[in-house]
Amino acid sequence: GSDSPAPKKPCVEPKRTLSYADRAELPKMHPLASKLLKIMEEKESNLCVSADMTSNKELLQLAESLGSKICMLKTHCDILKDFSEEFSQKLQAVAERHNFLIFEDRKFADIGNTVKHQYEGGVFRISSWSHIVNAHAVPGPGVVKGLRAVGKPLGRGCLLIAQMSSQGSLATGEYTQAVVKMAEENPDFVIGFICGSKMTEKPEFLHMTPGVQIKAGGDLMGQQYTTPEDVIYNKGSDVIIVGRGILEASDRLEAAESYRKSGWDAYKRRLGQSDQ
Amino acid sequence: GSDSPAPKKPCVEPKRTLSYADRAELPKMHPLASKLLKIMEEKESNLCVSADMTSNKELLQLAESLGSKICMLKTHCDILKDFSEEFSQKLQAVAERHNFLIFEDRKFADIGNTVKHQYEGGVFRISSWSHIVNAHAVPGPGVVKGLRAVGKPLGRGCLLIAQMSSQGSLATGEYTQAVVKMAEENPDFVIGFICGSKMTEKPEFLHMTPGVQIKAGGDLMGQQYTTPEDVIYNKGSDVIIVGRGILEASDRLEAAESYRKSGWDAYKRRLGQSDQ
Repeated sequence: GSDSPAPKKPCVEPKRTLSYADRAELPKMHPLASKLLKIMEEKESNLCVSADMTSNKELLQLAESLGSKICMLKTHCDILKDFSEEFSQKLQAVAERHNFLIFEDRKFADIGNTVKHQYEGGVFRISSWSHIVNAHAVPGPGVVKGLRAVGKPLGRGCLLIAQMSSQGSLATGEYTQAVVKMAEENPDFVIGFICGSKMTEKPEFLHMTPGVQIKAGGDLMGQQYTTPEDVIYNKGSDVIIVGRGILEASDRLEAAESYRKSGWDAYKRRLGQSDQ
Repeated sequence: GSDSPAPKKPCVEPKRTLSYADRAELPKMHPLASKLLKIMEEKESNLCVSADMTSNKELLQLAESLGSKICMLKTHCDILKDFSEEFSQKLQAVAERHNFLIFEDRKFADIGNTVKHQYEGGVFRISSWSHIVNAHAVPGPGVVKGLRAVGKPLGRGCLLIAQMSSQGSLATGEYTQAVVKMAEENPDFVIGFICGSKMTEKPEFLHMTPGVQIKAGGDLMGQQYTTPEDVIYNKGSDVIIVGRGILEASDRLEAAESYRKSGWDAYKRRLGQSDQ
């Protein structure tokens, strides 16, 4: 009859092979995530640099010198010995000029009422300058509710920490599943995950992976490293977050270019799969 | 024969009924935890006030006015709009004069290398003025390793967050068990827990419980409240952490005294059990 369901047809293009540009145009895409994907496509970069500097001057110099290579700069404002309002304005100007987003890696992890103050107020006023922040889901959904109350009116977005790159992390199994659920229930503010590999098939969510070095390995405090190729091609993540691999290189610009190329090649290779 | 085991005798004094003063003298007690227990006994207070103020002046006034009632003051330095080195020195002087400890509720939750910088450096230099900090165990043991590298030489101590008072918290079940194990493996720096109830029978560990109000209930962002009596007498925790129950009272000093008395009465009642 005319009301019988259409025959099932095989999915011609699996979601995992959508390009960054295609995903930027998805109707349910968060505007900030869409902006980031467009930057990535335009700059051919899925590289986020961890700017773990301890002075404003050093951080601004790094942002200026590597700005053209990155889609995002990750900061820890609370390790800067001389953080100031003026600094955050300068950082925003550099981000604007080089077309990258700022991601303050604050790892909010308190009850809703507290994170609201921590995000909006204090010396840092994080919500006034950072496009993206992240949060642990351990306090329950109140942490998203508190952050959203501040960040949503400003067009900001939040990443939930689904997995960590450190040894013996408790963000595994059921914990990780609960994080994914919390993200999927809050797509108006949560734009993706900090994770080791793809967490959901929903293409609206971005996956960002820290602990990336061209040489795999670790540090003495439990950090563990994987390669750009592994993260983007094998694990299906979207953004590589690189700190010491670039910061400790003798030529940081050269190192950043090498990570950018490595991450982008892995992405092109991943896309290529769907053309076969 | 002479090598047969001694007959089992019933434990004459269950550990849970040890007084704060008794526990302060235990040979394996961490010196900072011992100091806190002595303060509690001396001031007849197991009350920690959450000083969730947004200016230095307000916080110092609160510390000064409630100082005689509390064993500990809990701060969020990152919600103070005018935090300064001078402020942290003044706060230390008030703590010294009124004989209470300072607990910066930072909820460290990053990898070891990062929390080291966050604890020691930046604008706040938390390790220079806060006796106690806390951490989420989600990054794995590296978080304790990083904090210990900074705090142990200074005689500081750390609480691990085993449970949270917020609705839908993921700190339950196996997660909580892993936190307890992590604490028990690091008694040289971890002095206890943030939790809803007693986590371990080892009397060297302190249990501190947030989300306490004389009237049980909740807020609109998932916070849930229990009473001092329930926390200390029924749940076997050691310290009540009270924020809005005191801060929002018309007479804060009167409210603080009422929480102090309520918490202390519950403790005396708990001790009384062993005399029966």
